[in-house]
Amino acid sequence: MTEAIRKNFASDNIAPVCPEVMNALIRINKGAAPSYGEDSETERLTALMRDAFDHPVWVFPVATGTAANSLALSASTAPFGAVICDQSAHIANDEGGAPEFFMHGARLMPLPSPDGRMDPAALDRALVTNGEGGVHTSPIQTLSLTQSTEWGTVYSLDHLAALTSRARESGLATHLDGARLGNSIAALNCTPAEITWKAGFDMVSFGGTKNGGMASEAVLIFKEELARNFSRRIKRGGHLWSKQRYLSAQLAALVENDLWLRHALHANTMAQRLAHGLRRHPAASLPFEVQSNEVFVVLPERSVAALEAQGFVFYRWTTPPGIDGVLIRLVTCWATEARDVDHFLEAL
Amino acid sequence: MTEAIRKNFASDNIAPVCPEVMNALIRINKGAAPSYGEDSETERLTALMRDAFDHPVWVFPVATGTAANSLALSASTAPFGAVICDQSAHIANDEGGAPEFFMHGARLMPLPSPDGRMDPAALDRALVTNGEGGVHTSPIQTLSLTQSTEWGTVYSLDHLAALTSRARESGLATHLDGARLGNSIAALNCTPAEITWKAGFDMVSFGGTKNGGMASEAVLIFKEELARNFSRRIKRGGHLWSKQRYLSAQLAALVENDLWLRHALHANTMAQRLAHGLRRHPAASLPFEVQSNEVFVVLPERSVAALEAQGFVFYRWTTPPGIDGVLIRLVTCWATEARDVDHFLEAL
Amino acid sequence: MTEAIRKNFASDNIAPVCPEVMNALIRINKGAAPSYGEDSETERLTALMRDAFDHPVWVFPVATGTAANSLALSASTAPFGAVICDQSAHIANDEGGAPEFFMHGARLMPLPSPDGRMDPAALDRALVTNGEGGVHTSPIQTLSLTQSTEWGTVYSLDHLAALTSRARESGLATHLDGARLGNSIAALNCTPAEITWKAGFDMVSFGGTKNGGMASEAVLIFKEELARNFSRRIKRGGHLWSKQRYLSAQLAALVENDLWLRHALHANTMAQRLAHGLRRHPAASLPFEVQSNEVFVVLPERSVAALEAQGFVFYRWTTPPGIDGVLIRLVTCWATEARDVDHFLEAL
Amino acid sequence: MTEAIRKNFASDNIAPVCPEVMNALIRINKGAAPSYGEDSETERLTALMRDAFDHPVWVFPVATGTAANSLALSASTAPFGAVICDQSAHIANDEGGAPEFFMHGARLMPLPSPDGRMDPAALDRALVTNGEGGVHTSPIQTLSLTQSTEWGTVYSLDHLAALTSRARESGLATHLDGARLGNSIAALNCTPAEITWKAGFDMVSFGGTKNGGMASEAVLIFKEELARNFSRRIKRGGHLWSKQRYLSAQLAALVENDLWLRHALHANTMAQRLAHGLRRHPAASLPFEVQSNEVFVVLPERSVAALEAQGFVFYRWTTPPGIDGVLIRLVTCWATEARDVDHFLEAL
Repeated sequence: MTEAIRKNFASDNIAPVCPEVMNALIRINKGAAPSYGEDSETERLTALMRDAFDHPVWVFPVATGTAANSLALSASTAPFGAVICDQSAHIANDEGGAPEFFMHGARLMPLPSPDGRMDPAALDRALVTNGEGGVHTSPIQTLSLTQSTEWGTVYSLDHLAALTSRARESGLATHLDGARLGNSIAALNCTPAEITWKAGFDMVSFGGTKNGGMASEAVLIFKEELARNFSRRIKRGGHLWSKQRYLSAQLAALVENDLWLRHALHANTMAQRLAHGLRRHPAASLPFEVQSNEVFVVLPERSVAALEAQGFVFYRWTTPPGIDGVLIRLVTCWATEARDVDHFLEAL
Repeated sequence: MTEAIRKNFASDNIAPVCPEVMNALIRINKGAAPSYGEDSETERLTALMRDAFDHPVWVFPVATGTAANSLALSASTAPFGAVICDQSAHIANDEGGAPEFFMHGARLMPLPSPDGRMDPAALDRALVTNGEGGVHTSPIQTLSLTQSTEWGTVYSLDHLAALTSRARESGLATHLDGARLGNSIAALNCTPAEITWKAGFDMVSFGGTKNGGMASEAVLIFKEELARNFSRRIKRGGHLWSKQRYLSAQLAALVENDLWLRHALHANTMAQRLAHGLRRHPAASLPFEVQSNEVFVVLPERSVAALEAQGFVFYRWTTPPGIDGVLIRLVTCWATEARDVDHFLEAL
Repeated sequence: MTEAIRKNFASDNIAPVCPEVMNALIRINKGAAPSYGEDSETERLTALMRDAFDHPVWVFPVATGTAANSLALSASTAPFGAVICDQSAHIANDEGGAPEFFMHGARLMPLPSPDGRMDPAALDRALVTNGEGGVHTSPIQTLSLTQSTEWGTVYSLDHLAALTSRARESGLATHLDGARLGNSIAALNCTPAEITWKAGFDMVSFGGTKNGGMASEAVLIFKEELARNFSRRIKRGGHLWSKQRYLSAQLAALVENDLWLRHALHANTMAQRLAHGLRRHPAASLPFEVQSNEVFVVLPERSVAALEAQGFVFYRWTTPPGIDGVLIRLVTCWATEARDVDHFLEAL
Repeated sequence: MTEAIRKNFASDNIAPVCPEVMNALIRINKGAAPSYGEDSETERLTALMRDAFDHPVWVFPVATGTAANSLALSASTAPFGAVICDQSAHIANDEGGAPEFFMHGARLMPLPSPDGRMDPAALDRALVTNGEGGVHTSPIQTLSLTQSTEWGTVYSLDHLAALTSRARESGLATHLDGARLGNSIAALNCTPAEITWKAGFDMVSFGGTKNGGMASEAVLIFKEELARNFSRRIKRGGHLWSKQRYLSAQLAALVENDLWLRHALHANTMAQRLAHGLRRHPAASLPFEVQSNEVFVVLPERSVAALEAQGFVFYRWTTPPGIDGVLIRLVTCWATEARDVDHFLEAL
């Protein structure tokens, strides 16, 4: 690792690929293999996911989280329908309209929340009147939640179940954006099964890229009817790799021996270390509970500028009205080292 | 290389990744790097492409050829428009409706041809009446050609120029599907510039995956107005990698020192060796000129079955009516060795 | 009727609205009525259609045939699917890409035929290999036929049944473009039931505009699952009239007392009179059987120009190669009078 | 007029067609006419609109307001873009996803406001950061306002100008949903020009259906580049009538001699009469200024139920939290008579 990584807290996607994933790519790089997912590495991945999630699962590897989310939502939402999500959701803010593109114009219905975690009462209110407008309105057909959330918070299992059971009562499909799924599993110390299908989810966007991979996301589907035609949607989106073994091998390396969970736990620990240090800083305030690998902190403009001047990299977030100072986001990852964190804290 | 590669002539996408590309991935795999294409490897790629094509060029790396083609066509074709192409084109037969998806329903207008090369007179006929139907018909707005073609033939530079100049006269944008661009450059012994922008193309789908890469395609755009908003289309298609350096590095490795052209020349040479051997076989007939790395041959069912029984892998193509025997396709690639070809010929 | 109508054979849509339809509009034009199809006129229409077609039927009035066709196809065809039709079909040639728009990019697969009537063997060939290409191709999900055809010919009931039964065997939905449905019923002297659901159709675009209406088309659906959500598609296409009673009343007036069939029979009779006269003309040749209300005739350029100079209005069609002369189309309608036809024949 | 109209305040679309429009339909119903908008009635309409709006204008008649709005927005907004509007806007709440359908997935960005009138400061805040998210967000490309608003309020001309000038500064196109345009002109006592292009609008959805028409809306475009290809969009949406004269004649009858403005003024006067009476009712409270032809009033549940029991028809609106009673909407129209209003007030 060069100096560069040490000062970069911009995102978990600025990290390189972990050695295990790179080695897997090297290992499988020989000879001919059937293309378009007919290879043995893809078969192996499906078995690994089945074991990891303790449930039959249809596994669809793709290169990006935006593709995973958008494809999943398009499988459960008609073009005339709608998806309900938190207003902080990645699908609602950061995917350049991809969900609407893949869903052919279906609408996102974002609900406000204080910390990225949807309020079951707000969901209930939205669903009580869902469909009352008849053909003049877009029926909500899918619930999409993000775990861990965009604010670094983590839903409890009960919270998830309260939301998904309400959604299922109303006939909605349920989707979990798990770009940082491992981080929330590590935070809750639960099993992958408990946080996904046992918590009421039909589909999961499994994130590997931020967690040590190169381009290694997957849609996991636990319900057969949603998996039907899914590979057609992937092909039609230009997301079917001819040499798919190289996509599957990355994911397999992450899932094998729980590497993804170890990475996530490490990243969470680094975030705790960072939060701990920040809390001791007199001018710092942390608006959200730090539960996964993202730390949001309000600092004086002077301090923020000084950190930037020293070469530290992070995002300035839109600072909410009424807050004095600058809201910045600091993200840790599998490659963040304790001394990187300490270095940042010292610099501050 | 294991035994497996030696008998596999199914496609050039069954091959592994070439050492140079794999080494590039290993080489760049350190430290943090800005995400979403702001990295130095992407910058380096653009410079390499600029040199290789001897023209300012906007370079948009994506993971699949389907994405490259569909995104390119969507930049030049309105949803109410149409794309004219050869009826053998990949966009018309093998992309699961991706072009129509990205173009939001614009239509493909395939023209029949004997060998995958569009007849300028046929193009002229189609363009003469283009737009006469007014709002009741879909105006042709883009010409898309494939070089080398799906039948393994190669357009001459004059042939390309005849088609593109006719298209430009009518205000069409011009796109080249170059999934096997290197093979046609090697076949014609021309420069990349001569076969692309000098031959009248505004956009090129540059294919690297079949030529030694892992997932390494790019849209090359030579006209600024077509490049505008293109990165929005990429993001919205879920095709923007967060760790884009790993996409760009593959392409850079292929372009640097003309590796892609050396690979292509090797594949073509293997195809010639194969064709040469086949022509000496009394029961074989080759319906198309062998100019790049694809060999189509009609063989007796008995011979084809015997080859399959020995473990050789290739596709049986739809045999045209009136032909006695089975039409099969044999594809060579950068990893095909002379002894693989000889082995096949001996087996036959 | 003014002079103008007498010389206009351009189409059946140049005609005015018949007195019965206009009177229906005047009759219902009083007082308030629930909007968006909750009115009593729409209810009455459904009952009338049920009787006319002797089958439970979901009736969706819309203003244009393009809307009717496109909406129907979108109900049975996934965005990644395809529709098989005759190459002369209106959906393939005259609707400005509307089917692809409403189907979100699904593809049309037109089959060539000599006279607008699809060959069951050609359909069989297409369906035998349907789906073999897996995710790389677009699965055919709907058969769409046109009755009477764009060339004025009429399928026999057996011909229709042969096509629809083959389609249903392969799991396709079946759609009939009945822009001139009445004309084919009159030609075959059959019942509306026999030519639609008894002939194997799930959905029919019922054409009223060309047959005396103002803007009076409807999608008739005989299968409940295809009707589900159809009104959502109509609203989303901007095709739900707030004052729907005025749409339904037109259709009701046409269906009541078989007015549409009497109109169609009259138009057919006028076409026969025209064809009869043309056949006696030494320089005229009629390339297609005249079975409904369209007459295609090849005449010397000199004769065609002379007719135009006298103010007769009709379309010059694309004259097929090898034919000496000009192919023109002459369309009769409910408002065409015998003397109009005679006048034309005399002028010729 | 029958009893029914007298008690119906549900909407202005429950009304019948006014005599002038019906007479126009009868008047033009003779002889042949060119189809698809080549008729003289459409030509006449364009001239009438040009005069009424005192500006060259491209006029595109369509049957529904949803079509008018959706088509207009699709002309100025790329599929990857966004439209900013008030959260009460019809496009955001009542069109079943039609705008997203026609825009191919572009997103609506609704801004909250107290009374349906967008706050220029809120628009400014949204535009200041527009595009900062780069490809990850959807750039706002169109401003769409509604006049009169969905809450029956009317923007002043200065208010409109403040919004459109801010929008134009940022390169946005500007659209006015004028489903009740006449009512706002009558309210402001201004000219059609002042409230449209002089107020900074590029496109207007001109509403005639609610104002005496049958199905008579139009998109008016004041900027040539937005009009280009518009007729292709209309055709592709299935909105091009073959017998367009019947669409144009309705609009012409409304515009001729300012009939639409007289109708609107009458409806507004009836609304004032209603509001005046309601304000005198001790238990009634009117949450919004009554400026056009919609009256929102909060009444005790008991009173509302009693009115319903007497056969009065109106919509119960979603009552905002904290309000005691039931919010209902009462709409007057060209056909509402003073005694209808008085009857309602007496009954209450």
